[in-house]
Amino acid sequence: MRAVILHAPGDVRVETVENPTIIEPTDAVIRLTATCICGSDLWPYRGIEPVRRATQMGHEYVGVVEQVGDGVHDVTVGDYVVGSFVASDNTCEICRAGYQSRCRHQVMMGRIGAQAEHARIPLADGTLVKVPGTPTESQLRSLLAASDVLGTGWFAAVAAEAGPGTTVAVVGDGAVGLLGILAAKRLGAERIIAMSRHADRQALARRFGATDIVEERGDEAVAKIKELTNGYGAHSTIEAVGTQESMDQAIRATRPGGHVGFVGVSHGVELDGLGLFLSSVHLHGGPAPVRRFLPELIELIMTGQIDPGVVFDLTLPLDQAAEGYRAMDERRATKVLLTV
Amino acid sequence: MRAVILHAPGDVRVETVENPTIIEPTDAVIRLTATCICGSDLWPYRGIEPVRRATQMGHEYVGVVEQVGDGVHDVTVGDYVVGSFVASDNTCEICRAGYQSRCRHQVMMGRIGAQAEHARIPLADGTLVKVPGTPTESQLRSLLAASDVLGTGWFAAVAAEAGPGTTVAVVGDGAVGLLGILAAKRLGAERIIAMSRHADRQALARRFGATDIVEERGDEAVAKIKELTNGYGAHSTIEAVGTQESMDQAIRATRPGGHVGFVGVSHGVELDGLGLFLSSVHLHGGPAPVRRFLPELIELIMTGQIDPGVVFDLTLPLDQAAEGYRAMDERRATKVLLTV
Repeated sequence: MRAVILHAPGDVRVETVENPTIIEPTDAVIRLTATCICGSDLWPYRGIEPVRRATQMGHEYVGVVEQVGDGVHDVTVGDYVVGSFVASDNTCEICRAGYQSRCRHQVMMGRIGAQAEHARIPLADGTLVKVPGTPTESQLRSLLAASDVLGTGWFAAVAAEAGPGTTVAVVGDGAVGLLGILAAKRLGAERIIAMSRHADRQALARRFGATDIVEERGDEAVAKIKELTNGYGAHSTIEAVGTQESMDQAIRATRPGGHVGFVGVSHGVELDGLGLFLSSVHLHGGPAPVRRFLPELIELIMTGQIDPGVVFDLTLPLDQAAEGYRAMDERRATKVLLTV
Repeated sequence: MRAVILHAPGDVRVETVENPTIIEPTDAVIRLTATCICGSDLWPYRGIEPVRRATQMGHEYVGVVEQVGDGVHDVTVGDYVVGSFVASDNTCEICRAGYQSRCRHQVMMGRIGAQAEHARIPLADGTLVKVPGTPTESQLRSLLAASDVLGTGWFAAVAAEAGPGTTVAVVGDGAVGLLGILAAKRLGAERIIAMSRHADRQALARRFGATDIVEERGDEAVAKIKELTNGYGAHSTIEAVGTQESMDQAIRATRPGGHVGFVGVSHGVELDGLGLFLSSVHLHGGPAPVRRFLPELIELIMTGQIDPGVVFDLTLPLDQAAEGYRAMDERRATKVLLTV
């Protein structure tokens, strides 16, 4: 089959590799109907994370079950399914508490590689969620978003306790930040302040529910959010970048007693303990337990209540993955879908 | 009046200073019936926080209202009252959300100094809570604990979401940690793991509700807590020290999705962003909004349901404050009450 391989920073190739097979009895193998490139794939692409060996990329997927192991009972060949970037048993105490991304038996799909025609899905019963019926082209795009960026933005909004009456600030205008806006809106937020300097992303932010746009950064951004909130700061802040600047900005933009939901993978971030102590915010984040939200997200998508797939602003065939990486790296695209 | 003055690290004296008076119309002046020495007073006493000038110490108090300003309506001369270490208006949005320790108009009582015979209390209507009737000697001690250490331990347990069915780990066996145990027990925790190496404090921990004692520290302590929790870690962890080691220990002892309530004032703590991200814990803390809990705590004390005053294991007259500081510094006493 064809798969996307990163050989070195900037060096993405589509190559032929062996088809995946069932290894554990709890595995399934799916045929992907679409995959995509994640903002987090850019860290190794840009050399910010080391590339130690040629690596099959990708962790977002929707598709049809082709094979199941003997221990798989809840999905069968032919099922249309979505899973998240972490395979999880969905039965351990951590999963049952809603933290499937930290399942006792977790397998990171990024280590398997889902930018490919087929993928092995470990712990298939716990990981995969069936889609009722066959999705339209538009629903397919939204389901693929649910696999990571929507689920992550949704978790960020839940972690930030976005809800009725709240003012939510969103740091980061990538796909996760934008879909965090969609989530905050669905969760009932009264006011949503998007932080963005890009006209196209501002437009999408407004489409998803942003009521205010802040173009400033750093101290000025914090001052602007305070100004918009009667001096108090946001009730809820979504952090969807993962840098020192974005974390500091998120914490400082939040009022005492407020909530910061952080989902940008931390790169070189150090938090000052006293600063955090005096901020009096709630801080919660980490790898999003997308599996927790998938049933609800699939339902919202298949009944036409949300349309997160519009976050994909460039669609390319799998063979042109390298161009997809370049477009995201150069910020010509927010999120790239690869047709399989 | 007499007051406790810190002149330099290790140099505590009881001196005669001017009696406080009403400055703002929202002030009250109270006659203290008791005050005490806080673990946080030891930071400047030990020179870990700088002592830039002679400073009147203390921020914990119970007493009787002696004078009120023209703008005070809810307390009157003769009322028996308790307040917290932060004076607050109790009307701003932050106060109404339960974060009176970060009130928009907050005044830190430590800047006024409550180890004295009288104290000016700013924002008296918002700050002071009336005690029904006149407390017994034992109730007086418990009310004084409510003023800070009980209220802080209570907040830590609430921030850590201690509740029915939870396993709570407590890092720190000072007065706050010990009263965090009492709070976790009252909030319904199923299992409470106290971390302590001191026999007297272990005994008090058990009296307050601890079910297990861990004497190990660092990696070994974390391993022990994992062992006691089927490998998962505690649901809820109270951090009541404020050092790098204690914060790291608290975060690592907590399961993914669990909650860390941190109330030890951070001293030189730096949190690794990626470590926090991957821990998937909820982190919340800061200066405790004791005012939020005072009505409930006073009720529990005056009806004999809790007895936090036993945390005071040394009682001295105000004049012997210097000996009180020495005893706490040398860990001969957990918490010192000063009679006025």
